[in-house]
Amino acid sequence: MISLYSHSHNLVFSQTLKHKPIRPLPDFFQSYINSFESHLARQEFIKNPKGLEIPIAYICKNGGKRIRPILVLLIAEMTKGKPAKSLDAALSVELFHNFTLIHDDLMDQSLLRRGQPTVHEKWDDNTAILAGDALLIMAYQQLKNYPTQLKVTMHELLSWVARIVCEGQREDIEFESKELISTHQYLEMITKKTAYLFACALKLGALVGGTTKKEANLFFDMGLLLGKLFQIQDDYLDAFGNTKIFGKNTGGDIRQGKKTILFTKTMELGSESQKNRLQTLFSRKNTSPSDRLVEEVLDLFTSTKADIHTRNLISSYLENMESQIDKLNISPDQKQKFSQLMSWISNRRN
Amino acid sequence: MISLYSHSHNLVFSQTLKHKPIRPLPDFFQSYINSFESHLARQEFIKNPKGLEIPIAYICKNGGKRIRPILVLLIAEMTKGKPAKSLDAALSVELFHNFTLIHDDLMDQSLLRRGQPTVHEKWDDNTAILAGDALLIMAYQQLKNYPTQLKVTMHELLSWVARIVCEGQREDIEFESKELISTHQYLEMITKKTAYLFACALKLGALVGGTTKKEANLFFDMGLLLGKLFQIQDDYLDAFGNTKIFGKNTGGDIRQGKKTILFTKTMELGSESQKNRLQTLFSRKNTSPSDRLVEEVLDLFTSTKADIHTRNLISSYLENMESQIDKLNISPDQKQKFSQLMSWISNRRN
Repeated sequence: MISLYSHSHNLVFSQTLKHKPIRPLPDFFQSYINSFESHLARQEFIKNPKGLEIPIAYICKNGGKRIRPILVLLIAEMTKGKPAKSLDAALSVELFHNFTLIHDDLMDQSLLRRGQPTVHEKWDDNTAILAGDALLIMAYQQLKNYPTQLKVTMHELLSWVARIVCEGQREDIEFESKELISTHQYLEMITKKTAYLFACALKLGALVGGTTKKEANLFFDMGLLLGKLFQIQDDYLDAFGNTKIFGKNTGGDIRQGKKTILFTKTMELGSESQKNRLQTLFSRKNTSPSDRLVEEVLDLFTSTKADIHTRNLISSYLENMESQIDKLNISPDQKQKFSQLMSWISNRRN
Repeated sequence: MISLYSHSHNLVFSQTLKHKPIRPLPDFFQSYINSFESHLARQEFIKNPKGLEIPIAYICKNGGKRIRPILVLLIAEMTKGKPAKSLDAALSVELFHNFTLIHDDLMDQSLLRRGQPTVHEKWDDNTAILAGDALLIMAYQQLKNYPTQLKVTMHELLSWVARIVCEGQREDIEFESKELISTHQYLEMITKKTAYLFACALKLGALVGGTTKKEANLFFDMGLLLGKLFQIQDDYLDAFGNTKIFGKNTGGDIRQGKKTILFTKTMELGSESQKNRLQTLFSRKNTSPSDRLVEEVLDLFTSTKADIHTRNLISSYLENMESQIDKLNISPDQKQKFSQLMSWISNRRN
């Protein structure tokens, strides 16, 4: 049994999390990142920046932990795919991810991404719209060198997932103006908005590796689980994390009135007065949220034990992932790698 | 010799254009439109609108002359393609076109499209961003039923053209803040922004028809010419057209500070004082343009003869198209159809 759960448990739930730097990426992932970064640097749109390409190069080079491309590379390797062959699929997923970041940041009016000004902040709204559009197209183009049948399968997977990601973002926006959202609805939304792209990354890796359709779909399902885990952890860290480490203002979701799982859990667990208070705090209009408001919301998350319930949900996802990994027909060494990546992902944000 | 040029000459350049309704679409095109509209109506996103699909259905059903899909259907038929097989390619081009309309209208802050509120006006900016994204993805998805190799060719054509269209839109935006643009630069921009999608439509039709690569590229080049002709005619009508007929406020480009070919020609043909005056009128900041300002700009377009030079350019494109059509290895009847469509296009806007 891989020690995935106990591993991350110490890190995710440590009371000293706010004050500790996140642990470094395990050494062997560095080789994935290195080959991915080299592949990225070889692309024309990075080498010859002009007009539209400057903001595209900016977002692509502006850090990020490259979780999604690493997943493609890792699963391709696990399923006996040649690493060099998985690089384009990895880049396709990263380009698609950056398309969603640029457009989502604009829609959310976010000021920072990875500790740097967002594209619409650094340039303007029009640049963000257009750079996002171009990145979406480039995600498709990045698949051009695969054999015909594989390329068609990849294209169609990417399109299918892309449509669902758009639906998820739509639901996310709509949730802002809804008073009540159940945890079930919330989980459905993040599955669409976030988890499907993780699932797409894992399945693309498996397709490059040449697995059966059934195996590839198994990886897809694991990706859905991993993506949900990642997002809920992200919500938790946004509320209880640390700006310096995570490159975002803590409480950013609260300031934007985003109803994350901490909100839905508080509305399910709180007393009438706690629920009313939370709704009042989230329904304010046209007022700039103060630090005191953020603190009060955080207190409600804690006093209703919504924070503990959220951490328990993360734990259950981790356990589920662990048992999925155990079932895979791969070597113990590869299982260990996969587990380490899961553990690392559950302690980071991107 | 097909009477394309003389045909349209009467209509395009008629001094009474402002006061005459545009002539109706030739009867035989109605059958293309009918089959296209039926195909569109059968789509799930039209039948079951919800959330994201409502604005998508709105823009897709909100009129438009369906020029691009008609071009796909016509060229497919000309090149011996089965009409039913070209419908998905036609719809793909129309979905892509609607993606560009939604995002461009948002970037330009346009209030009206086809005489109706634009998507960002009727809903909001976020809806426009997301509906546009979804339409771009759907344009790819619409090609799913073609045979594998044809599908890959179509996908790659669409991606290649889409990237160029984005570059064209970028240049268009940049031109707004540039004082001087040459007619050459302007023609390059509209070729990217508008003509490539026309070219894509013609080539898709030829691909469905199963032509050789060389023939398909011949149609592509004709599409480039037709697209430029269409855009310059659009610029001309925006300045000298009629709101009731064209569904846009006349002088919209001038009000938005768009430097169309009428601007570049005026800057090439005008006296020093005329050029200075035009630049002053276009460089105003944060002032709402008055009808008087629009009138003064129109007077400059006329007094420098920029309007006549623009019409002459349209004429030369029409003549060029005519000789291209003459060279095609198709029946006189089909040539006549093609010419009628060209003529009709050069008198319309979409």
